[in-house]
Amino acid sequence: MSRQVSETENDHGAADEFVPDYLLYLLAAASESASAQFHAQVRKAGLRVPEWRVLACLSDRDGTMITQLARVALAEQSRLTRIIIQMEDRDLVIRRSDPKDGRRVRVFLTEKGREVVSVLVPMARQHEASLLELLRTNEGATLKPALKSLLAALEENGKKEFP
Amino acid sequence: MSRQVSETENDHGAADEFVPDYLLYLLAAASESASAQFHAQVRKAGLRVPEWRVLACLSDRDGTMITQLARVALAEQSRLTRIIIQMEDRDLVIRRSDPKDGRRVRVFLTEKGREVVSVLVPMARQHEASLLELLRTNEGATLKPALKSLLAALEENGKKEFP
Repeated sequence: MSRQVSETENDHGAADEFVPDYLLYLLAAASESASAQFHAQVRKAGLRVPEWRVLACLSDRDGTMITQLARVALAEQSRLTRIIIQMEDRDLVIRRSDPKDGRRVRVFLTEKGREVVSVLVPMARQHEASLLELLRTNEGATLKPALKSLLAALEENGKKEFP
Repeated sequence: MSRQVSETENDHGAADEFVPDYLLYLLAAASESASAQFHAQVRKAGLRVPEWRVLACLSDRDGTMITQLARVALAEQSRLTRIIIQMEDRDLVIRRSDPKDGRRVRVFLTEKGREVVSVLVPMARQHEASLLELLRTNEGATLKPALKSLLAALEENGKKEFP
């Protein structure tokens, strides 16, 4: 059963190709593919992705400011503010002015918000473990440290334009 | 000069926090931050990000089908089709039906498209090299192989739902 396969029909991966070996492609594709699995669970829990990110961030640091939440949720601040108002309407979070500086708005988990995130964080950890198990030991051990180093270095010279 | 710093004002990174150590956050944040630098160059070249991805993919495999381009450009097929029509209007690519199967549409670089991408690919490689230089040797050496393994494993059980 032989079959003519044109060059463009092969799977990606030839040694001399640019895209399948390009760091920015690999990061974007791995992020999208890995997230797609877990984000299906997030939506089953009745949350949109930025809402899950806000709750996860607040479970680390209750009372985080919206500016910081926007950074972690990878969303524009104006969009995130709208999302947080909707989350407040659904009794997941509550906004309070900082007692020391009224212009600063801090966001807190409600009891319901805390319940929702206390189910999702263990699921996220389990999903992460299942992903890392897919890798060889040395790759699995260095992936997160390498991403953290890259992120820290990028934040450090974040304003520096390339090239 | 001592100053009271509330817990929520500290930089991220405490050992027991979930988000700063969460693989999906690290992937998304590293991807977004690394891409932001280079995508500024893409826009300076007069291209949108999916357009750059299409050109890069065609520079690897001229005549790729739209379905495959959508996968690599991380865009919905209907959106990518619109983008490719606009790219055709700007003389960057040309669509042709596959001579063996008229329902299959293949996309080819024009001379102008080839010129544009021949400038951008070396810039992308240079940017990538500058990113990998930010990492320690062992992290830099394993980051791309680990991302490739993760991506390959995710594609393999892509239809499998978590958990």
